[in-house]
Amino acid sequence: MQKLKPVELRAMTVPEEERKKVKRNPIYIILDNVLDTYNTGAIFRLADAVAAEKVILCGGTETPPNHRIKKASINTTEWVAWSYSPTTVGALQDLKSQISNLKVYAIEQNIRSVPYNKVDYIFPIALVVGHETDGVSKEVLELCDAIVEIPMWGVNTSLNVMVSLGIVLFEVMKKLS
Amino acid sequence: MQKLKPVELRAMTVPEEERKKVKRNPIYIILDNVLDTYNTGAIFRLADAVAAEKVILCGGTETPPNHRIKKASINTTEWVAWSYSPTTVGALQDLKSQISNLKVYAIEQNIRSVPYNKVDYIFPIALVVGHETDGVSKEVLELCDAIVEIPMWGVNTSLNVMVSLGIVLFEVMKKLS
Repeated sequence: MQKLKPVELRAMTVPEEERKKVKRNPIYIILDNVLDTYNTGAIFRLADAVAAEKVILCGGTETPPNHRIKKASINTTEWVAWSYSPTTVGALQDLKSQISNLKVYAIEQNIRSVPYNKVDYIFPIALVVGHETDGVSKEVLELCDAIVEIPMWGVNTSLNVMVSLGIVLFEVMKKLS
Repeated sequence: MQKLKPVELRAMTVPEEERKKVKRNPIYIILDNVLDTYNTGAIFRLADAVAAEKVILCGGTETPPNHRIKKASINTTEWVAWSYSPTTVGALQDLKSQISNLKVYAIEQNIRSVPYNKVDYIFPIALVVGHETDGVSKEVLELCDAIVEIPMWGVNTSLNVMVSLGIVLFEVMKKLS
């Protein structure tokens, strides 16, 4: 498969035959009210990087076509599969009914959380990230098989949503590659 | 140590006694001409997250005080130690002369690159990230003990600089924690 640099991606549409050569991994990325379009775009870029099966945008999360999402995604919105659901709960229920044995992991700090690198990730997998301030909502957490968190050594308690997702996605990919 | 949420951090200055309680890890983060102030700010946030010893801003990288850096850093610029060097080569030479047995790793795609998760990271450590389009410059790569890269499974060849650094930093932290 031909790989392309961001500057090339921004300037062109990737030919369909190239996009079809990507072997998709059984990973679903669910955005529970991620409101910043820059984050949403960057998550598309990440979804392409790990060749995720699909991105599911939920609730208040903006959807393509959106200039800021497209730019931050460096055009990966053009070929990463995505869908929209008015509610994250509905999206998860639908996905669980469609994908047998789906395991759902939220990335969140919670009393139930376990360190992200101590989890035996099982596929197919759905990873849920949440609102920039409020995180993943309670009713969504209740639908998750596990909640994973990233340890923090400083003063601040949290990471940017795209950084958190990147760290967990590449940990998850170690089990597949 | 009292941990604080972004919303709290944005609203206040962290008391000096709290900042002093952070045990710093022997990690230096070097920005070789990172030009986007949003990336620079987010890297400060990451530096706090892993309690890095210092961030070194080089060349065309903007320095605090800068509104966009401060905002993206969620105020971590107020306590994460940093310095500026006109050249990254100079910064690395100075750091190597000050810190004995420092190992320097660039995050870059290069013929010399090895997968980031197959490296036996040795401390004290310096991690170098580069310009958003051009990456880490050749003369800087020559000063590095190793070059690490993150595998990519999609069409696009690269990740955002803050995401790449986050993935490698948290891999590095597994050796310390």
